[in-house]
Amino acid sequence: MSLLTLLPEGQSAEVPEGLTLREALARLGAEVLAPCGGEGTCGKCRVQVHEGAVPPLPEESALLKPEQLDQGLRLSCRVRVAGPLRVEIPASSRRPAMRILPGGLSRPVPLDPAVTKQVVHLEPQQLHQPWARLEHLRFSGELRADLRADLDLLRRLPSLLDGEGGTFTAVLREDRLLDVERGDTTGRCFGVALDLGTTTVVASLVDMVSGREVGHAAVVNGQTAYGHDVIARINHTLEEDAGLEELRQAALVSLQEVITQVLERAGVQREEVYEATLVGNSTMMHLFLGISPLSLGQLPYVAMFNDALEMPAHQAGLQLNPAAWLYMLPEIAGFVGADTVGAILATSLDEDEGRIRLMADIGTNCELALRYGKRLLVTSTPAGPAFEGARIACGMYAAPGAIEEVHLDGTVKLKVIGGGPPLGLCGSGLLDAGAELVRCGIVDETGRLLDPEEVEDPVWKERLIEEDEARAFVLAWREGQPPLTLTQRDIRELQLAKGSIRTAIDFLLERTGLKPADLDEICLAGGFGTYLDEHSALRLGLLPAVDPKKIRFVGNGALVGARLALISRDLRQGGALAARQAEHLQLAGTPDFQMRFAESMLFTGGAGSEG
Amino acid sequence: MSLLTLLPEGQSAEVPEGLTLREALARLGAEVLAPCGGEGTCGKCRVQVHEGAVPPLPEESALLKPEQLDQGLRLSCRVRVAGPLRVEIPASSRRPAMRILPGGLSRPVPLDPAVTKQVVHLEPQQLHQPWARLEHLRFSGELRADLRADLDLLRRLPSLLDGEGGTFTAVLREDRLLDVERGDTTGRCFGVALDLGTTTVVASLVDMVSGREVGHAAVVNGQTAYGHDVIARINHTLEEDAGLEELRQAALVSLQEVITQVLERAGVQREEVYEATLVGNSTMMHLFLGISPLSLGQLPYVAMFNDALEMPAHQAGLQLNPAAWLYMLPEIAGFVGADTVGAILATSLDEDEGRIRLMADIGTNCELALRYGKRLLVTSTPAGPAFEGARIACGMYAAPGAIEEVHLDGTVKLKVIGGGPPLGLCGSGLLDAGAELVRCGIVDETGRLLDPEEVEDPVWKERLIEEDEARAFVLAWREGQPPLTLTQRDIRELQLAKGSIRTAIDFLLERTGLKPADLDEICLAGGFGTYLDEHSALRLGLLPAVDPKKIRFVGNGALVGARLALISRDLRQGGALAARQAEHLQLAGTPDFQMRFAESMLFTGGAGSEG
Repeated sequence: MSLLTLLPEGQSAEVPEGLTLREALARLGAEVLAPCGGEGTCGKCRVQVHEGAVPPLPEESALLKPEQLDQGLRLSCRVRVAGPLRVEIPASSRRPAMRILPGGLSRPVPLDPAVTKQVVHLEPQQLHQPWARLEHLRFSGELRADLRADLDLLRRLPSLLDGEGGTFTAVLREDRLLDVERGDTTGRCFGVALDLGTTTVVASLVDMVSGREVGHAAVVNGQTAYGHDVIARINHTLEEDAGLEELRQAALVSLQEVITQVLERAGVQREEVYEATLVGNSTMMHLFLGISPLSLGQLPYVAMFNDALEMPAHQAGLQLNPAAWLYMLPEIAGFVGADTVGAILATSLDEDEGRIRLMADIGTNCELALRYGKRLLVTSTPAGPAFEGARIACGMYAAPGAIEEVHLDGTVKLKVIGGGPPLGLCGSGLLDAGAELVRCGIVDETGRLLDPEEVEDPVWKERLIEEDEARAFVLAWREGQPPLTLTQRDIRELQLAKGSIRTAIDFLLERTGLKPADLDEICLAGGFGTYLDEHSALRLGLLPAVDPKKIRFVGNGALVGARLALISRDLRQGGALAARQAEHLQLAGTPDFQMRFAESMLFTGGAGSEG
Repeated sequence: MSLLTLLPEGQSAEVPEGLTLREALARLGAEVLAPCGGEGTCGKCRVQVHEGAVPPLPEESALLKPEQLDQGLRLSCRVRVAGPLRVEIPASSRRPAMRILPGGLSRPVPLDPAVTKQVVHLEPQQLHQPWARLEHLRFSGELRADLRADLDLLRRLPSLLDGEGGTFTAVLREDRLLDVERGDTTGRCFGVALDLGTTTVVASLVDMVSGREVGHAAVVNGQTAYGHDVIARINHTLEEDAGLEELRQAALVSLQEVITQVLERAGVQREEVYEATLVGNSTMMHLFLGISPLSLGQLPYVAMFNDALEMPAHQAGLQLNPAAWLYMLPEIAGFVGADTVGAILATSLDEDEGRIRLMADIGTNCELALRYGKRLLVTSTPAGPAFEGARIACGMYAAPGAIEEVHLDGTVKLKVIGGGPPLGLCGSGLLDAGAELVRCGIVDETGRLLDPEEVEDPVWKERLIEEDEARAFVLAWREGQPPLTLTQRDIRELQLAKGSIRTAIDFLLERTGLKPADLDEICLAGGFGTYLDEHSALRLGLLPAVDPKKIRFVGNGALVGARLALISRDLRQGGALAARQAEHLQLAGTPDFQMRFAESMLFTGGAGSEG
């Protein structure tokens, strides 16, 4: 055993030698981010070793610069405990406090939740009333005749309804009596909409009486410790016997954590929440339920189930009111999941409004939906995690400290979430940075960062530096720290993401015989920032050339859809119907996909002109 | 600790001193019957102490004769271990191997069970088939579009449907996919109908493919250890914190035992049983589910629930196929339970056939139903346990060794179940014995056993003996054992039971303005023997004076009803409708009940003549 001390607070513990530093820190309750799952490939789990360092391993030298190693930065998934250590975890390696996207309901919805409350005044039961206590409650409250109660409630009913009568509140969910509460509690009834993202888990707390959102919260999906994308997670269930259960638990812990946060902030008790809705991609849905996602990872890439599922929330492990139910939105295809159905609901794409509308939900996977008259076409494409800040040298989540806007206007102008000093670059900042560098001619059409000698303006010239034998553009210099840069490799990641999404858009248009100018609206959804600059999106060619006014940023559409399903049974049906009727186009299987994709990687946008 | 040895086999164990002998024997796995729940009041828990006896306690002297005490017979619920003991448990104190009533379905029913199987041939799924595996199964088998699967199955599905295709069998229950089995297993699908009686638990195994019964079995309800009737059981839940759970477990163990027996005999695996139906009185239904039956034991004597319940069988604790479901028939009122609904189904009283028909289900509690045109009237009355052999000196269950028929014809002629030597008297034998003694003038109209000097025939004279300072009639002399007798007290018990049932019948007729002669049929149901002599029933006045041809003995109607509900969804609906439409008449609350009851206790039957 060796003594491990965590600075600056100085917590310490004796930990076994041979553990990785990351594992050892976990024993102190300190979590270090590792998007790659601790494989030593992402370089994100850096910690500062103040005392007790051993010589760097080759993987560390590959991912950290010599000066970083000199400063004591190390990869905590590689370093193993071999003696006493005093370490510090930089903010960039910790889970940030997440900032939620603004939004709110995007369509008018009559309030008609599955769960309702009704007050019932009970008279004491008389000898000439030989019916059961439950019948007495039913008659007295004029509740529906086919009302049924589950065993758990029946077991609690004798102590609840003691024959004396009084005022009670029936908690109803369609033909099911969920619960009976003493007194009149009809004023308080809550639901929670959940978005289980590959990277981020978000909760929206809804007052089911008014239908209004009363709070939201977000945390990082604890599954990221097992790998950054869904493929890594699927592989984890293959490689480890307990892998599926570990991922299920991780999702559950994150969901419970975000629920606890949102409840605490709003002053709502867990027992007051009677319904949850959940969206996520197919892999997330499978993992959350403990269903092997293997079929999603191999040809023909299908889910085990598509339908909306509903079950007692505790069956899935969620701790709300013990009688609460969970509704999981339906999926469309293996890689077009409940999150897409949520985004379709949020953007009203489930309805034919007579307009031609495109929705792109941009995440590690990008899903697209096109409403064209009676047709609803969907497809999906892997976009890579660039827009969520992963695999980007200075990338980070859309959390305080993240650069969300970049303008090159004589100098580099940055807008940072929270207003403090910049800590990294989130998705919208990445897009802006790329677009501005292209606009100013610092990045050419092929995505190449120019050499300093190719650039005339001395302001840009001095920002073009050589870093690890590759070109990088300095977004911000920082005192005592390496500068915040956009590297050539970052630009390649951006190209891949952009190319993938654009290919999918073109493909959808082509299959419907539409031209970009035919589109009445393009809705961009996703959690990559609090806004997305439509001009940047157009300039980089992420979107086809359309009038920028047609582009609308809707934030986390998946979550909004979950909230709509929470307050409207009608929209639940609408989502289920849309999921069933949607035509799924398989992009990966099309013959010229690779060629189109290569073309799409070029930065040849339309700069706002209609195509 | 003291050594306890059980003869004749000689098993032994060290047991703590201070335990009752019955508790100590339980540690050896030997169960001793105790209808009173071990209160020292029924005298049924006799064991023979060969070595180590201590002087008898006053309660033992009160319940055992001096010569029995001399022989070493003792009450195992009273004797406490104070040193080494060698004991033997007489057959009369053990649970007998039960004999089942014959019967079979009493009405033609189209086979339409809730659970069905369907073979599905799956082709491997192709890239252009992006739907989920479950959808693929649904499409391939042309299964209903709204088919859903529970979480347990979804978790097993990935290993079942591995994408390779093949032949599978879908186990379906309405809109639910219960299970998927490899290969074509459509030839084997079973259901089990269960009757959870206060005293006896019976199972009927049904081949759901043919609808035929393929086996039956019965055991004593393990709850009898906690008291003989429902009131004693309800009190047990009040007196002991763990009482409700003890009774729930006891019922469950008995049900599981009888299920195991019936499966073993038929060579059917537990996993092949996909549905169970259950009947029982309201108290039994509550206890089985772990729902406090307290409301049934206090005014206004109501159940907590009346409706038919259905749930996964494992939720109620039953171990069948893990995906099996349980359907519990509905109840009508506090003391007119699912067993009555079963008997109503078995006797077609749920339908208006244009005939006026009365059904009496005779047990510790007696329930009656009268079909009169569109009306279905029900009532109930406590009959006491006499017809089940309890509180009768030589009483026993309708098991091998029980006297089931008695004729006084020059001498006493007995028919014994199984044909061996008589061990005791079951319900039908008790009724016969009473009726014959009345017919021969040995018992007068008031129920008094005559003195020997009042009887002329020397055959009967010598059988009228004095036993424990009370009169008794010898049914059979036994070598080395006290004779099998019918005591004055037994006759009083019979009078109470008979009086109670007859009062209820008269009450039903009166409330409908009917005369006995208006009845087209009287159906007697119950588990008190394999038959019931209609002449005896008429002679004693148990039934009003009707043509004996109108009387029909239907055996265990409750169980038959459970079997009908197992194979016919239509009859499930019929039972539920009947339960909802039945008019319940409260007998105990009527003003002249006590006077009528007193009158009904007289043995003034109609001897077959119409009233």
